[in-house]
Amino acid sequence: MEWKLTNIKDLYRRKEEFLEQEVTIGGWVRSIRNSKNFGFIVVNDGTFFEPLQVVYHDGLSNFAEVEKLNVGAAIMVRGKLVATPQAKQPFEIQAEEVLVEGQSTPDYPLQKKRHSFEYLRTISHLRPRTNTFEAVFRVRSLIAYAIHKFFQERDFVYVHTPLITGSDCEGAGEMFQVTTLDLKDVPKDDQGAVDFTQDFFGKPTNLTVSGQLNGETYAMAFKNIYTFGPTFRAENSNTTRHAAEFWMIEPEIAFADLEDDMILAESMLKYIIRYVLEHAPEEMQFFNQFVDKGLLERLNHVVDSDFAHVTYTEAIEILEKNNENFEYKVSWGADLQTEHERYLTEEVFKRPVFVTDYPKEIKAFYMKLNPDNKTVAAVDCLVPGIGEIIGGSQREDDYEKLCQRMEELGLEKEDYDFYLDLRKYGTARHAGFGLGFERCVMYLTGMTNIRDVVPFPRTVKNCEL
Amino acid sequence: MEWKLTNIKDLYRRKEEFLEQEVTIGGWVRSIRNSKNFGFIVVNDGTFFEPLQVVYHDGLSNFAEVEKLNVGAAIMVRGKLVATPQAKQPFEIQAEEVLVEGQSTPDYPLQKKRHSFEYLRTISHLRPRTNTFEAVFRVRSLIAYAIHKFFQERDFVYVHTPLITGSDCEGAGEMFQVTTLDLKDVPKDDQGAVDFTQDFFGKPTNLTVSGQLNGETYAMAFKNIYTFGPTFRAENSNTTRHAAEFWMIEPEIAFADLEDDMILAESMLKYIIRYVLEHAPEEMQFFNQFVDKGLLERLNHVVDSDFAHVTYTEAIEILEKNNENFEYKVSWGADLQTEHERYLTEEVFKRPVFVTDYPKEIKAFYMKLNPDNKTVAAVDCLVPGIGEIIGGSQREDDYEKLCQRMEELGLEKEDYDFYLDLRKYGTARHAGFGLGFERCVMYLTGMTNIRDVVPFPRTVKNCEL
Repeated sequence: MEWKLTNIKDLYRRKEEFLEQEVTIGGWVRSIRNSKNFGFIVVNDGTFFEPLQVVYHDGLSNFAEVEKLNVGAAIMVRGKLVATPQAKQPFEIQAEEVLVEGQSTPDYPLQKKRHSFEYLRTISHLRPRTNTFEAVFRVRSLIAYAIHKFFQERDFVYVHTPLITGSDCEGAGEMFQVTTLDLKDVPKDDQGAVDFTQDFFGKPTNLTVSGQLNGETYAMAFKNIYTFGPTFRAENSNTTRHAAEFWMIEPEIAFADLEDDMILAESMLKYIIRYVLEHAPEEMQFFNQFVDKGLLERLNHVVDSDFAHVTYTEAIEILEKNNENFEYKVSWGADLQTEHERYLTEEVFKRPVFVTDYPKEIKAFYMKLNPDNKTVAAVDCLVPGIGEIIGGSQREDDYEKLCQRMEELGLEKEDYDFYLDLRKYGTARHAGFGLGFERCVMYLTGMTNIRDVVPFPRTVKNCEL
Repeated sequence: MEWKLTNIKDLYRRKEEFLEQEVTIGGWVRSIRNSKNFGFIVVNDGTFFEPLQVVYHDGLSNFAEVEKLNVGAAIMVRGKLVATPQAKQPFEIQAEEVLVEGQSTPDYPLQKKRHSFEYLRTISHLRPRTNTFEAVFRVRSLIAYAIHKFFQERDFVYVHTPLITGSDCEGAGEMFQVTTLDLKDVPKDDQGAVDFTQDFFGKPTNLTVSGQLNGETYAMAFKNIYTFGPTFRAENSNTTRHAAEFWMIEPEIAFADLEDDMILAESMLKYIIRYVLEHAPEEMQFFNQFVDKGLLERLNHVVDSDFAHVTYTEAIEILEKNNENFEYKVSWGADLQTEHERYLTEEVFKRPVFVTDYPKEIKAFYMKLNPDNKTVAAVDCLVPGIGEIIGGSQREDDYEKLCQRMEELGLEKEDYDFYLDLRKYGTARHAGFGLGFERCVMYLTGMTNIRDVVPFPRTVKNCEL
């Protein structure tokens, strides 16, 4: 294209290079204000949270066109960038040329007034053009990159575990079926059962709920690996924290135990927070001001403090003293609810806390049995405002013990041959965890509904765009 | 864990720090050779392509255990790292302690001999422990990171477009259905049609074949975005280049035309190649020696040369002169087959080539109509050894023209309301492309079967692990 555009981000971050120079930008009109023979346009180009003010005069050949622009129009502007020491913004561009790239209309759905998140969910294709969602989705992108950067700097291998799977990792949760069979007329065999031999993969398949078991096979080759991909739950739960499709990060480390796992999780969370605070200060300031007043203080506190550690058994003792205030009363053996998790992290420890060594009955079959034979080397990381953000464990690396546990739970050994092989050929202690990516974005932005941190959310009865 | 391990990669890359020092490593036995009172173990820990030689003596308290180790066993070794100026390898570790973490067995499936790729596909959980697949999957990880790094350095926003979708982007290819309906007894309505109101999303849903249309909505907010996620095709094609599940990168740039699109694609490919050559020299050397003799020369040539440009119309003229040698004869209006693509890039131009301006009939509805009214602003990037690796276009940004094209093709406007909105409210010229991630991995490694560059490949009748 003939117009060589500069990102508005660069004007702000490297303004010495551009001040008093001719610059060219392209973006969308956030607001426009006309006087008789001049006017102001506030333009946002999506590369930076702050917009740029454009001043235009009736010297423009298309002045009549420009002064009638509506909010939402796309324009390109050429002109000089001049400092504005008296104004709120540091500089403005004095337009010598304004090219109207695309008009908007007076009924453009995003007018200058504040819209509710509920309304904006109905226009998910336009909401990233608002301040809040521009900030959310830029920070989402930065968090994703920070996670890759963290692991790659430590030589972890990124593994793409499969989405379509023939097995059910944890036996947990409802799964979506994947099929090419004609739903109007599903083929059946002699016994009246679905004839999956006619399906694409020749057998029943689902969307994965976790890449962990696959990830473990790669950890036993590369020592340190991570996954970062979509996972799915067909749970019929219409809450602010559940989506049917979400992204998950699952590192797995070999020659490592639960302690190493927690060190990794803590470093990762701190790394992500630091990265975002450094790379999106304007957005984080905005969240702190308009979305969640205590956000920055909380995040800075997390970066500066060591995470707390408590065993499940100790946690239960603490919680039992407060049982009268809980909807769900706790006692040893019970699963922790969000109210308990938040009480621990917000009221008791006032910082992130690792809860370890849960009763084996409430945890998955692959977690390493502790010497007490009652608990497993599991860990959940709880953070203020969210509750559980990370769940992990050291894995059972003993062939016999793993088989025994699978038998107790009625799992078929044949379905897990590959997994048992890892314990037959050069098993090594290893551990890993899962970080729910959306929960992480909520935690860092202060947003409270998962629908507002996913570009196009999928929830019960909702699959738009 | 008490043992503080050093990655073998660090021993190689920063050996000055470690030579003559005590180091501790953990990894898997690749081979073992015993003499009477000492022996050698070659250990690979997955962090580096080259293994580490361990020398052990009968002074070890568990000498008897160590000398009986089988290939595949997991061990941790503590000892001094000493230079070996006479040997092939630069140093070895003189073991003072060897901890056997996990035994292996004499029937371990990966013995020292060379195994065929076909055989290794049957043990996808173990094959990353071989030289070839260790190299492939580390390079795959590095390519993925290079892609993120390239776009993030240029302030592109990473967008997670949805996997489960209610619409069919290009109307292209067979799609997988996603459902929670009971396949044994699919509910029907009065008319005998499938009653999707009872399905999870209350309507029919599929796995996405492209995130492009969703991506465009974000490009019209952030200017520059990219997606990087899984896509799916239920095509019944059992070739070495097709998988049912694969990853795709789809950047989208606003205030940009086809020329900008090609500049971006070319810079990206060169960036990725440079990154991998710099960060995995041992792996690339290995591919060049054992997998694809001309690989390094070809990649270096690509980095150093400008990509060629040719219009579809010119390309057809070139190809027609060689029609006698093609299985499929070409003429204006025909789609290019792999044999044509490879002829252009390998024989005619001998470097990557952009073919532009295809007949509108063989391209998608959203591509921008050229002034000739016959062709569209589409581009395919062809590379030697592969053929098409990138397909892109400038998008039709004119509301009326887009509507007209949709009508010609019988597409329902209601299904694309969100997409048309982008042309109603601040439309701007924009362009983008799709890079098939697996093809990119094949291109950079010289591997010729897509099943060998995906950790757990999904193809017709094949969904193992």
